[in-house]
Amino acid sequence: MIIVFEGDTMMRRISLLLVLVGTLAGVVAVRAPASGQADQDAAAIFVTKIPTGYRDWKLISVAHEEGNLNSFAAILGNDVAIEAYRERKLPFPDGAIIAALHWRFVPSEENNKVFGRSQSFVAGQPTNVQFMVKDSKKYASTGGWGFAHFNDGKPADEAVLKTCYPCHAKIEGSDLVFTRYSP
Amino acid sequence: MIIVFEGDTMMRRISLLLVLVGTLAGVVAVRAPASGQADQDAAAIFVTKIPTGYRDWKLISVAHEEGNLNSFAAILGNDVAIEAYRERKLPFPDGAIIAALHWRFVPSEENNKVFGRSQSFVAGQPTNVQFMVKDSKKYASTGGWGFAHFNDGKPADEAVLKTCYPCHAKIEGSDLVFTRYSP
Repeated sequence: MIIVFEGDTMMRRISLLLVLVGTLAGVVAVRAPASGQADQDAAAIFVTKIPTGYRDWKLISVAHEEGNLNSFAAILGNDVAIEAYRERKLPFPDGAIIAALHWRFVPSEENNKVFGRSQSFVAGQPTNVQFMVKDSKKYASTGGWGFAHFNDGKPADEAVLKTCYPCHAKIEGSDLVFTRYSP
Repeated sequence: MIIVFEGDTMMRRISLLLVLVGTLAGVVAVRAPASGQADQDAAAIFVTKIPTGYRDWKLISVAHEEGNLNSFAAILGNDVAIEAYRERKLPFPDGAIIAALHWRFVPSEENNKVFGRSQSFVAGQPTNVQFMVKDSKKYASTGGWGFAHFNDGKPADEAVLKTCYPCHAKIEGSDLVFTRYSP
């Protein structure tokens, strides 16, 4: 592309045009998500704020995933969730929140040294925290559960969050919740 | 060994002797532990009552032991213990109690089916619950910690409990506590 300058007037017109295009693009970029129906749905079915005080919640159980995940998890519940588990209430009532705290699954050299053999695995670096928040109206389109995933306190992209429900939907018998309560 | 019976008298004497030996052995066996100084100490250094409400305590971390133990553990702490962990107080103050809840480490067929591959391990049947209770005076002879181990709510034999301290004593740098706090 070759631009031939015919004088100051043309230059001013080009500059003005560029500014206008840039401004319009910005306006479109900012307004489009808010006005699109699809994006309103997306905003509603995901949880983007970390529930306060979750690290103090009571224990539901523990889990380990091998392979790429290589994760060690503790699954905690707020009081509504814990009561539902202990009283075997299904489906979980609105207000129930389940938290999955994930760390790396790592061998403990310190423990192995004491035990005299390689047998001990512990929680390493934290990797992410996930939540399921029960609100049967707000999250009606995803089985009544809102899903959340935080890396270092920051919510994951919607692309990540969209993978939660299809997998959880497969365990309908326990209201989409993988973890069983461990006494 | 050949025994030659010389008559009823000898037979009665042998029987009487056996009964006496048996009785004396029983008396010795029953009385020795109560009167021996060593056994009084033993009674003092072990915890034989399950601390109330421990299943509601906050999470410290998780652990897995391979091999014969094949265990999945959640380690919980009472408020004194949790505060000490979070504020990195060492040694742990009196009143701190740490609970290790153990279950079998088992594959989850249900989860693996959903994930489409064998990768998921969960807590199976409960196996035992162990406690460390900090009381620097009462348990002075075992580093200030009283040890406990319960199978199905019943305290383990002293023979089992005596194995706790020698192993925990090896991790003096963290006040005899294996588990680190996981954020």
